[in-house]
Amino acid sequence: MIDLNADLGEGFGRWTLTDDEALLSVVSSANVACGFHAGDPVTMRRVCRLAAQRSVTVGAQVSYRDLAGFGRRAMDLPPEELAAEVAYQIGALRVFAEAAGTRVAYVKPHGALYNRTVHDAEQARAVVTGVRLAGEALPVLGLPGSQLLDAARRSGLRAVAEAFADRAYTPQGTLVSRREPGAVVHDPDEVVRRSVQLVVDGTVTAADGLTRVPVRAESLCLHGDTPGAAALARRVREALEEAGVTVGAFTA
Amino acid sequence: MIDLNADLGEGFGRWTLTDDEALLSVVSSANVACGFHAGDPVTMRRVCRLAAQRSVTVGAQVSYRDLAGFGRRAMDLPPEELAAEVAYQIGALRVFAEAAGTRVAYVKPHGALYNRTVHDAEQARAVVTGVRLAGEALPVLGLPGSQLLDAARRSGLRAVAEAFADRAYTPQGTLVSRREPGAVVHDPDEVVRRSVQLVVDGTVTAADGLTRVPVRAESLCLHGDTPGAAALARRVREALEEAGVTVGAFTA
Amino acid sequence: MIDLNADLGEGFGRWTLTDDEALLSVVSSANVACGFHAGDPVTMRRVCRLAAQRSVTVGAQVSYRDLAGFGRRAMDLPPEELAAEVAYQIGALRVFAEAAGTRVAYVKPHGALYNRTVHDAEQARAVVTGVRLAGEALPVLGLPGSQLLDAARRSGLRAVAEAFADRAYTPQGTLVSRREPGAVVHDPDEVVRRSVQLVVDGTVTAADGLTRVPVRAESLCLHGDTPGAAALARRVREALEEAGVTVGAFTA
Amino acid sequence: MIDLNADLGEGFGRWTLTDDEALLSVVSSANVACGFHAGDPVTMRRVCRLAAQRSVTVGAQVSYRDLAGFGRRAMDLPPEELAAEVAYQIGALRVFAEAAGTRVAYVKPHGALYNRTVHDAEQARAVVTGVRLAGEALPVLGLPGSQLLDAARRSGLRAVAEAFADRAYTPQGTLVSRREPGAVVHDPDEVVRRSVQLVVDGTVTAADGLTRVPVRAESLCLHGDTPGAAALARRVREALEEAGVTVGAFTA
Repeated sequence: MIDLNADLGEGFGRWTLTDDEALLSVVSSANVACGFHAGDPVTMRRVCRLAAQRSVTVGAQVSYRDLAGFGRRAMDLPPEELAAEVAYQIGALRVFAEAAGTRVAYVKPHGALYNRTVHDAEQARAVVTGVRLAGEALPVLGLPGSQLLDAARRSGLRAVAEAFADRAYTPQGTLVSRREPGAVVHDPDEVVRRSVQLVVDGTVTAADGLTRVPVRAESLCLHGDTPGAAALARRVREALEEAGVTVGAFTA
Repeated sequence: MIDLNADLGEGFGRWTLTDDEALLSVVSSANVACGFHAGDPVTMRRVCRLAAQRSVTVGAQVSYRDLAGFGRRAMDLPPEELAAEVAYQIGALRVFAEAAGTRVAYVKPHGALYNRTVHDAEQARAVVTGVRLAGEALPVLGLPGSQLLDAARRSGLRAVAEAFADRAYTPQGTLVSRREPGAVVHDPDEVVRRSVQLVVDGTVTAADGLTRVPVRAESLCLHGDTPGAAALARRVREALEEAGVTVGAFTA
Repeated sequence: MIDLNADLGEGFGRWTLTDDEALLSVVSSANVACGFHAGDPVTMRRVCRLAAQRSVTVGAQVSYRDLAGFGRRAMDLPPEELAAEVAYQIGALRVFAEAAGTRVAYVKPHGALYNRTVHDAEQARAVVTGVRLAGEALPVLGLPGSQLLDAARRSGLRAVAEAFADRAYTPQGTLVSRREPGAVVHDPDEVVRRSVQLVVDGTVTAADGLTRVPVRAESLCLHGDTPGAAALARRVREALEEAGVTVGAFTA
Repeated sequence: MIDLNADLGEGFGRWTLTDDEALLSVVSSANVACGFHAGDPVTMRRVCRLAAQRSVTVGAQVSYRDLAGFGRRAMDLPPEELAAEVAYQIGALRVFAEAAGTRVAYVKPHGALYNRTVHDAEQARAVVTGVRLAGEALPVLGLPGSQLLDAARRSGLRAVAEAFADRAYTPQGTLVSRREPGAVVHDPDEVVRRSVQLVVDGTVTAADGLTRVPVRAESLCLHGDTPGAAALARRVREALEEAGVTVGAFTA
């Protein structure tokens, strides 16, 4: 059994990015953009409705306030501000989730906030404080070994680790930096193959091509913002199901 | 018995406008800015805490998305967008209200949205749709005779009328347009006197200086964004109390 | 001889909309978004460079400040604010045009500002004041008969009229409102045919199917934000050239 | 002879911060906010007019795009984006400076961008690239020894060093970090005294109270966003003039 998550609702007003309908027929958990890096209120409402119709779990994909940079610009901001901005986003999304008959069931930071809170303990704690401010002990989805998951766990929140079938891993089990060549796996067949290995064997073959690294993850992150993303996501799901894996939300 | 309401939390980041602490010691209902015309998340959180400490009721002061114009630029936007933007703001504020141990207890549109929904039935309905989307049958605070209060009532929401002690009224009981001379009463003594007349007699002396117009209002709106506003608000409250009026939230 | 203009650079950060490269191989005038409804600085710079390389004239596509609504929400704003916002946008674009070795050669309002200044004389004058503030007597591109072109002319600016091959006209020569059925011509063959008639005959067949209305225009507006837009624009240009028309900027 | 500079025009729409009129009667160089951390177009226009009337030199106070954080949140953004954003701001301000009969005569980064480019060579180069993009070889105002001034100098721009009378210096001549106690000198008399010493002696007494550190600066930065700031700025200017110093723009 595995959860599949993807970022959704990442348009803004006139602009669209993710193929929300197609992805919602594949994933079990939808990381819905909350308006700070993407995600206008109409889109948030629509995605929540579609997710509810398809019994896909809704999570708040919280971000730095950065439309111009799509939340990909790390920002130094005081913990108090970050916590309040995280809570604000969760609250805004909650309205649409609940209006659709579902709920915000977890939180996942987006882009630069995701990357920053891997190492930055202060911002990691601020995100967790923001989740707590929002009033429910929501699970936090992130990278295994990150400060974020540590902070979540210490705060009594469920920390849910995810893996990436399209990212290269070091022999030590960490992600190869995107600045390195080969950091991203582009071949769809390879992504499908790695997905099955990740879930069935609980391992990934490292960038050295030799080492099989154990990776413990409750969720597999599928990317939704590239051409062909939805089709590849579907293939991953089908391959997993053929291998006998049940796809289902980690919150189930 | 009368409710006193004022706009609060109308700073944004580095900028401050309203003297929130002073006003919270006077009013019974705080219209808290929700981030679209003013009101960053840290300010929203702080104002909700202060309001809760002082047992002041929190309302969502929803607005067009317009920081540059402070929500004072009327906007033509599709009802679906307006409704979703209203719901978004209510949801965001709710997080901070509930974290402070209180709740969002009513909704009041700000600035151009307030003025627009006096006459624009479509936008008035969209605001009410937004309130409904946000999941609770919250009272709506507005101008007596406005499309907004009509739409609220028809939707089954409580429609709460407010009056203005510092605005001139026509003999017909409507507000004199701000474009007319004498639309705003600047003399503090006069504002205090009119406040008492409005609450105790339920009338206002019209701009012709003769006609006493009946005004039915459950709340008196005090302005908080001008120099001396907090001091004047305090004088109004004291004069009301001396006249035997009890100040208390209309939601009580 | 006719000018072909289209809106370009209408992405923002991570989001793209217009196929700028393809359109720049077709049009003679590029209405470049300036950051208020679309158009981040990197995109503005890139589009100016590409336009300069292809000898396409650069115009400032000025807009209300409205990323969330893509500049499609009419806004009531004081003339002084509108004028300053228009000038701001022209100045920002000018930097990139001049860095690319070209210049901002005209101004065209976008979306709701375009539509509003057809009838709203005050906002039309404010746009012209903004153009004047920006320091050069730039031509203004707009709808024939609009308040905008009137205001431009009265201010001593060149007023350049444009026509639309994909919009239905009334027998009186005005555009059929987008709220009416049949307001937009969707059949590509029909758009191509109408383009040639507009330019060669100086007429358009009205929505009644009978009346041939004279339309005087120095520029034909091609839409660039729909699928197949760039391909259709190319077909229009080829048909015009086959009919013996030279395509060239009106500023030439 | 010394230049006095201060940040001006740091309001946004409804919000004001700096007492622009008072400061413009004191300083010789005005760092005018360009809309990214503060500074709406109407304010930019007004400040440029006032500066021109008083023969105060106008500089572009460029910033990260961050209204919510007032430009005080350091951001990781690609050099290409930073350069284009800097150029955009300069171009926008230039329109208002030139309409007022003056010009943008220098560039000074604001807040977090100022602090970041003290040490971050890549962002420092990007700012200089942005200045170059904007088409004129404008002087850059910043901290002595900063990467920013180095990058400016290497690019052939004039690098203008500034000093702070209200900041503590280490015995090595660098600023004491704001996180340390005593980093900011609050006593107005002390600020006045230090100003005179800085300009007349070219030294500052370090935080140890003993070492007199040589400080070479062509400009003294006065703060304008605190209560009493304008009055203190005036006292500094008067004390300098009494000491025989002529106040004048470094660009003169």
